[in-house]
Amino acid sequence: MDRRKFIAGTGGVAGILAASTAPAVHAQNANIRWRLASSFPKALDTLYGAAETFAKKVSELSGGRFVISTHAAGELMPAFGIVDGVQQGAVECAHTAPYYFYGKDPTFSIDCSVPFGLNARQMTSWMYEGNGLKLLREFYSNYGIVNFPCGNTGVQMGGWYRKEIKTLDDLKGLKMRISNLAGEVMTRMGVVPQSIPGGEIYQALEKGTIDAAEWVGPYDDLKLGFYKVAKNYYFPAWWEGGPQLSLYVSSKAYNELSSENKAIIECAAAYAHTDMLAKYDARNPAALKELVANGVKLNRIPKPLMDEAFKHTEAVYAELNAKNPQWRKVFADYNNFRRESNQWFRFAESAYDSYMQGVKL
Amino acid sequence: MDRRKFIAGTGGVAGILAASTAPAVHAQNANIRWRLASSFPKALDTLYGAAETFAKKVSELSGGRFVISTHAAGELMPAFGIVDGVQQGAVECAHTAPYYFYGKDPTFSIDCSVPFGLNARQMTSWMYEGNGLKLLREFYSNYGIVNFPCGNTGVQMGGWYRKEIKTLDDLKGLKMRISNLAGEVMTRMGVVPQSIPGGEIYQALEKGTIDAAEWVGPYDDLKLGFYKVAKNYYFPAWWEGGPQLSLYVSSKAYNELSSENKAIIECAAAYAHTDMLAKYDARNPAALKELVANGVKLNRIPKPLMDEAFKHTEAVYAELNAKNPQWRKVFADYNNFRRESNQWFRFAESAYDSYMQGVKL
Repeated sequence: MDRRKFIAGTGGVAGILAASTAPAVHAQNANIRWRLASSFPKALDTLYGAAETFAKKVSELSGGRFVISTHAAGELMPAFGIVDGVQQGAVECAHTAPYYFYGKDPTFSIDCSVPFGLNARQMTSWMYEGNGLKLLREFYSNYGIVNFPCGNTGVQMGGWYRKEIKTLDDLKGLKMRISNLAGEVMTRMGVVPQSIPGGEIYQALEKGTIDAAEWVGPYDDLKLGFYKVAKNYYFPAWWEGGPQLSLYVSSKAYNELSSENKAIIECAAAYAHTDMLAKYDARNPAALKELVANGVKLNRIPKPLMDEAFKHTEAVYAELNAKNPQWRKVFADYNNFRRESNQWFRFAESAYDSYMQGVKL
Repeated sequence: MDRRKFIAGTGGVAGILAASTAPAVHAQNANIRWRLASSFPKALDTLYGAAETFAKKVSELSGGRFVISTHAAGELMPAFGIVDGVQQGAVECAHTAPYYFYGKDPTFSIDCSVPFGLNARQMTSWMYEGNGLKLLREFYSNYGIVNFPCGNTGVQMGGWYRKEIKTLDDLKGLKMRISNLAGEVMTRMGVVPQSIPGGEIYQALEKGTIDAAEWVGPYDDLKLGFYKVAKNYYFPAWWEGGPQLSLYVSSKAYNELSSENKAIIECAAAYAHTDMLAKYDARNPAALKELVANGVKLNRIPKPLMDEAFKHTEAVYAELNAKNPQWRKVFADYNNFRRESNQWFRFAESAYDSYMQGVKL
């Protein structure tokens, strides 16, 4: 239906206004078209899928007036080019794991995951009802970005190891696919971090080019088949207690939106945020079973290794606090929330969960 | 601005369509006005507040075209009259804790909390990505209701006790303010459940009319001042591992909405859902500290009592499965999700959280 025919058919202007909530009207009226660049390939359906969920909700909420096309990593720009892409206006928005931009500024990592950081629930609470969103918005304003929480994986697994890791000595010289802040801490523990794209991990593990690799958790790891070439699956990833994904919106594009469309962005991102964790929580159990059925050995990272990692992590944080004012400001609040929250979670939450995990259901 | 002046000022019909995303236009056009009846008083700002958050987001998302007024318990109808109110069309929607309607059908409780049930994350996952929403929508269709998850408190505390509870004998004859499914299990453990409105608990505990009472958790409990009349604060509430609040929308009113407005209801409820738990998680830590500073003794419910409660709970579930087909259908899926989810959560999630709760931050 073209616009003139539509107008002719509605009985004048009063008819148009009365009908203006009907989606067919708005579909005519798709006056905002944005592009979203993801840092993930389509095959990672939970991670990439959050961007699709977000775009779908924007379209539904706007009755088709506001349409966002989603593009996998590499389609419009490289996975790690999206901060520059949004900043330079090449795309209006992007979806990413902010710790990929640790090299630009370690403060990005606080919007995603830092070693021994907040778990998924704590992170959402800090963002929504603590000072997280406010402080990170200040930080991102340096990059022309308005950020929205848009997904969380939950606690990740600590990775795949060709040999068992029993003592600190087993880490010395270990070539492990791990990077950023976790890589920095691992280095201090004697590990030799390796930067390898997801698609090349399997072969590197198989050939023994690397001894270990971390990826996400059962659902994503099963797809890549690591269990065929490394049987020891360790938990937890002390460096990924609740990695948050983030929606980056260009400040310029955002400021041109009506307050209605700003609310649409916020609520569509909130829906996708909650839904991604729900997906992981619903899909990880069956994937874990399948891994175990394939002979995977589940091992807990020994406490002395956790303690050693914690000690080095605190030292890294002290160094960052001393040299990076942006980091210091955001981390001070994050760290306070982390302490307060864990002091509460160790009572009712911990007692309930540990009982439920121990009883025969 | 009245409608005619507005139309005259926009340069004709094309101007109207181009401008139709501006909120000012839609505010003129508030063609949907609904009323929401809450089961909570305004003083419970986290519980009642979720309805306010929901209504605020509906208004923002619709640019003021869709406005919902929120009404505290008793204002339009009694707290426990809201199922009838929505069913009979007295209001278009309501916000409640579904287990209040255990007496109508115990199946309502599965949409909120059952003893040894899902925690907050698991519940959200079951609703969003398991079969929860689908099965509960089927159940609610018997009441002319379309339900949406709309808040969660997290694991609640196990209540306030005038005396310490060390063994099963300490429960015999204990007069405790507790009801519904938990009351049924408590009865089998020798407790004498009491039904007392929130506003009268303090006086009953003070006078010794009751020996114990359960309410919510630190943030809400602090407001009611229970710590002044009962010093023993137990955890966890094995009957409330992640109580979900629910938005009830009249099927008739819902079916009259455009698909755009249906999406607005869904995403506004999702935002309020996530935000309520974030509020509790952000506010409980300080409230717990204040309680402890006031001499409250934090006690873990002894494991033999948890085990006894679990045993009786399983018996109650077996009886409900045998006599209530609605319950049996929904609970079968819920129970399966509960088993699978806890088998996974006891690895990475549990190991990470317990480490973080034990280390000095």
